[in-house]
Amino acid sequence: MTHSIQSFRLSSGLLVIVEPMQDVQSAAMTLLVPAGGVRDASGRCGTAAILTEMFPRGAAGKSARELCAAMDNLGLQRGVHVGSAHVTFSAATTADRLPDALPLISSMVTTPHLADEDFEPARDLVEQGLMSLEDEPRQRLGKVLRQYSYAAPWGNSSEGELSDLPSITIEDVRSHYRRFMRPDNAILGIAGNIDPDEIRAVTESVFGNWTSCSVPELAAGERPQSPCHIEHDSAQTHIGLAWNTVPYRDDRYYEAWAAVSLLSGGMSSRLFTEVREKRGLCYAISASLSTLREEGRVFAYAGTTTERAQETLDVTVAEILRLHEGITDEELQRCKARAKSSLIMQQESTTSRASSLARDMYHLGRVVTLDEINDRINRLTTSQVCDFAVEYAPKSMVLVTIGPQALNPACVTTLGS
Amino acid sequence: MTHSIQSFRLSSGLLVIVEPMQDVQSAAMTLLVPAGGVRDASGRCGTAAILTEMFPRGAAGKSARELCAAMDNLGLQRGVHVGSAHVTFSAATTADRLPDALPLISSMVTTPHLADEDFEPARDLVEQGLMSLEDEPRQRLGKVLRQYSYAAPWGNSSEGELSDLPSITIEDVRSHYRRFMRPDNAILGIAGNIDPDEIRAVTESVFGNWTSCSVPELAAGERPQSPCHIEHDSAQTHIGLAWNTVPYRDDRYYEAWAAVSLLSGGMSSRLFTEVREKRGLCYAISASLSTLREEGRVFAYAGTTTERAQETLDVTVAEILRLHEGITDEELQRCKARAKSSLIMQQESTTSRASSLARDMYHLGRVVTLDEINDRINRLTTSQVCDFAVEYAPKSMVLVTIGPQALNPACVTTLGS
Repeated sequence: MTHSIQSFRLSSGLLVIVEPMQDVQSAAMTLLVPAGGVRDASGRCGTAAILTEMFPRGAAGKSARELCAAMDNLGLQRGVHVGSAHVTFSAATTADRLPDALPLISSMVTTPHLADEDFEPARDLVEQGLMSLEDEPRQRLGKVLRQYSYAAPWGNSSEGELSDLPSITIEDVRSHYRRFMRPDNAILGIAGNIDPDEIRAVTESVFGNWTSCSVPELAAGERPQSPCHIEHDSAQTHIGLAWNTVPYRDDRYYEAWAAVSLLSGGMSSRLFTEVREKRGLCYAISASLSTLREEGRVFAYAGTTTERAQETLDVTVAEILRLHEGITDEELQRCKARAKSSLIMQQESTTSRASSLARDMYHLGRVVTLDEINDRINRLTTSQVCDFAVEYAPKSMVLVTIGPQALNPACVTTLGS
Repeated sequence: MTHSIQSFRLSSGLLVIVEPMQDVQSAAMTLLVPAGGVRDASGRCGTAAILTEMFPRGAAGKSARELCAAMDNLGLQRGVHVGSAHVTFSAATTADRLPDALPLISSMVTTPHLADEDFEPARDLVEQGLMSLEDEPRQRLGKVLRQYSYAAPWGNSSEGELSDLPSITIEDVRSHYRRFMRPDNAILGIAGNIDPDEIRAVTESVFGNWTSCSVPELAAGERPQSPCHIEHDSAQTHIGLAWNTVPYRDDRYYEAWAAVSLLSGGMSSRLFTEVREKRGLCYAISASLSTLREEGRVFAYAGTTTERAQETLDVTVAEILRLHEGITDEELQRCKARAKSSLIMQQESTTSRASSLARDMYHLGRVVTLDEINDRINRLTTSQVCDFAVEYAPKSMVLVTIGPQALNPACVTTLGS
């Protein structure tokens, strides 16, 4: 099973990375276009989200219904998603049908109608999605935690802000499209049982004329100061914590990965056993890495009853702070074993491979093979991970809570002192 | 790629189905044991849920921590889940490690500790999980919709009832274990790059002595009458609908599948285009099949703002009622294309194959190959699907809503008249 990954640039400048996989019947693609929420103008947070909602509503002379029917006819599982950095187009189907799907995806990307009459329904849906967060405090917490963790615009909500939506016009959306939906710095990853030469010809024919236009750098803004409490009438309290770590492109990323994995990878991880299993403090607890290109954070979540919320917060923070204590070879070994079986599973999914190809190019400018990841993980030692845990122990923490009452934040606010 | 599926019975009576897949590196297993929530005694709803929470807490002389560490060492991705009919043990890892994982899974199943001191923490977590539904109205709606759709005990919540939890004792849990966690009617499905002879030897050695014990039939009880409204202070209203269809084992199941697929499969489906895209009435809408062995339902969901809730309900019900109108070859063709690409993707996942093997044996007493499903789908005609839609048009509908105010249920309550 030799997978030779190829990458090439189309005439338009779009970077394409292709990984042929002989042992599968499917094929998948991920297109990252740097037109995400960070590009929303000030006071217009939600522009990229409305644009994203408008892409499937007709392109290249095909009505929304025709476009949708054509894609369904190819059995195309697909989505358009707005994130901070990117608007992401993803699709998967049987390998033989991907070449027919690419022109349809490309028409949405390069010649969407963005018609007047589709604007209101799209904005309404974005508005409704935001309002629905009211009934989903856990998701809402994630949104607010991000805002308190990264400086604007990186902390902005890519799903938009309710207060900004009424000011956004169809012209804002079209201008966002014209300025940012460009092949410069966009990346297309394709994985599956495909012929790279055929993919090269098809992508050139459908994305080769996409007009380029250079995009200005982003300036970093402000970040609100935590702790933040959001009043919510319920018997539950949702707790979010965040602290600094290294981003994906950093040499020490795998150490950061191992550190979070010790905390929250699998059922023998520390947070799961100490906070959930032993003390029964909460029903849900987890920590995971978040990475921008230049910055990284660990985000942790605990959901609990209000009466146990204070203890849950205190115990969780204490567990995080003593992460460097007593890391054993066995403990690290378990993390490695878990990672390897995940890698094998991932290797078998064209969708996750396509998305990794594009993601790696964005963060690193090159593709990391599964063998390389395996090797990096194998070489990790307990002393490396312990050193990392000491060096990157949280010097301050962002704390966001949603529930009937605020918690005593002492365990977090006294960190620097 | 020839997959020859084998099935055999172990000395204990446990039925095992194995599907070798040469083109993958992983392997997965699903064990269904008919000890789910339907077996909870009256007034003790949650017994199976607590038992499920106790399985990972030590078995065969290994403490919770040792057991967990041993499984993590094998990179085992795993879960124990309580459903209505079954407690399900699922696991996946690299194919070479599955034989080492089976003894660990088997120890949880056949010789769990069920220690006194683990009971309270397990019950606490079940309680917290139920309380957390308060902050998740969409999940809560699913639970209530099921209760109004199937007669007890099939409509019972397998996650338990808050009011019953205080009465449940460790003896109830042990008794539930002794009576229902038996190999009779349990089914083990295994798929992946494995040697069937080796799997046969390993499963016989670890599950061959599992003591059998016949389990009594279940009697059907009552079903509450809808419409049901649950008051919830929010700007959102969550709407659930349910109506009768055929179960998976029925000859006409694929027609039922196509009918629901026209309503809610993919973005060109009727509910998505008519209710969400065209009218912008709601941010989330979907319909899906639910199947017991002897009965089936369609469950539909719409999440919307309270001011649009009445119109959303009326439009959704109208769309459902006119399903038989104007079904075209093109429309059905799109459903078929979607289904085929899903099948291909599924074929590449050992986890979903293992689960399908076990599920098929439970519902049908035989395994349906992907080729057979493909063939059944290919042969569907518009007139078959249309006839089905007429014959199984809802004669009554269950309606459950969660939100600040009840809706006018006329569109549902006048159905029979």
